[in-house]
Amino acid sequence: MTETALETDAEYDVLVAGGGVAGLTAATYTARAGLRTLVVADGESILGRNAHLENVPGFPAGVNPRLFADMLREQAERNGAERVAGRVEELAGVEDEFRADLADGGTVTAARVVAASWSDADYLDALDVAVRDAGSKRYVEVDDSGRTSVSGVYAAGRLAEKYHQTAVAAGHGAETAITLVHDADVPFYHDWVVPEGYFTDRGREVPPGCEEIDAGEQARRQAESRGTMREYFAEPHADRQRTHPSLVDDDRGRVDPDWESDDD
Amino acid sequence: MTETALETDAEYDVLVAGGGVAGLTAATYTARAGLRTLVVADGESILGRNAHLENVPGFPAGVNPRLFADMLREQAERNGAERVAGRVEELAGVEDEFRADLADGGTVTAARVVAASWSDADYLDALDVAVRDAGSKRYVEVDDSGRTSVSGVYAAGRLAEKYHQTAVAAGHGAETAITLVHDADVPFYHDWVVPEGYFTDRGREVPPGCEEIDAGEQARRQAESRGTMREYFAEPHADRQRTHPSLVDDDRGRVDPDWESDDD
Repeated sequence: MTETALETDAEYDVLVAGGGVAGLTAATYTARAGLRTLVVADGESILGRNAHLENVPGFPAGVNPRLFADMLREQAERNGAERVAGRVEELAGVEDEFRADLADGGTVTAARVVAASWSDADYLDALDVAVRDAGSKRYVEVDDSGRTSVSGVYAAGRLAEKYHQTAVAAGHGAETAITLVHDADVPFYHDWVVPEGYFTDRGREVPPGCEEIDAGEQARRQAESRGTMREYFAEPHADRQRTHPSLVDDDRGRVDPDWESDDD
Repeated sequence: MTETALETDAEYDVLVAGGGVAGLTAATYTARAGLRTLVVADGESILGRNAHLENVPGFPAGVNPRLFADMLREQAERNGAERVAGRVEELAGVEDEFRADLADGGTVTAARVVAASWSDADYLDALDVAVRDAGSKRYVEVDDSGRTSVSGVYAAGRLAEKYHQTAVAAGHGAETAITLVHDADVPFYHDWVVPEGYFTDRGREVPPGCEEIDAGEQARRQAESRGTMREYFAEPHADRQRTHPSLVDDDRGRVDPDWESDDD
């Protein structure tokens, strides 16, 4: 996913804080619905510490976690999401929008915000989003569909106290994004691609969000999918394995004496 | 996924009714936790009607829906789940277990049940599982984690009124299964594969459910993943496209005059 330069005067429909599994999946869904979406991500997802992802649906022999992260970024980008490197430092409600101050001094304005940054959500404090403190961890309280206590602010994945699994974070990212699309009154019934005639041969219009494709177009998309996936799996992934941050991150795996304990 | 012959005297830890996205993902998770898991599936998931799945995390150029279903079945099987062709007709509580009568006359006994059969859940009626009737549809009521009103019975995916998206169904299947594993008192902290030393170099034991692997093992698993995925995407998928059941399922896409309307 190519990082874009931050357009400080741009108005986004959706700001996603965090570029892990939940955030990138949410961005794919909001971007597909035509909402202008910006992901602000400060680098690595905790996914990078995993050695081999074996329980992500659709990868029977598992997948390299860093490759999976690459694919999530590419998927969000293909569907139209933008991304900047950075970290949201503070979030404020300004009239009907939210203004996010980034750690490097930039500012982003967006109509809605998805918080998907597990390790740091202090930026929500100024908005009085309801949270649950659990020792050193903080979880954002959400309803059944990903809404926080503040209208227009959503939380997805581990930050919303979902189980710490890639499949669950992805599912909750999608669910939260679909809720957001609904709340934004975007007519987007179901994000489905169906065969030619599925609706129209029954005398019905193709619902917003759905697409009918003929056999030729289906073959073309399948061919592109096959080429893309074979390319992803052609070579071992180049990025090195990461480990727990309390360990000196080198080949000898020593313990960093300055690290403060956590409970992961 | 190879279908097994039904062992009528076998006692399963988990019976999954339904072999769609939610059910197969749940089975992968319960089987990985060491619970003996049987999937009863009567054939095709509604996934087969889709023409190209474009919003499943990890497939940037989309994936053929029938291939994706194959991969889910293979993933559940690799992780130890069994499967029989069939349909649960009635479910009864017998002492601390559940007895499922299948449509073809077989019987299965299991300690816990995951209902993941969107189009038909009448088998839950005898247990008085709380449901919500919505016109021609019925949804099973679940708590935040997939539990129904009856202890030991869970519901996942669309049947539990989750959004009708593959990513959401998969995430909810995983979530429900993790809840079930927890309720079964199986020590299975987190189903993670981590690099060598992630826990042990910090003087901690590897938690149940986690596995530390060294660089050689990681390279071996990545190589297997690459070979497996390249093989899946080597050729176009052989199964033909399905369409709406009200349409005569042939090349001419005619409307079946005997079909009763539904709202899909």
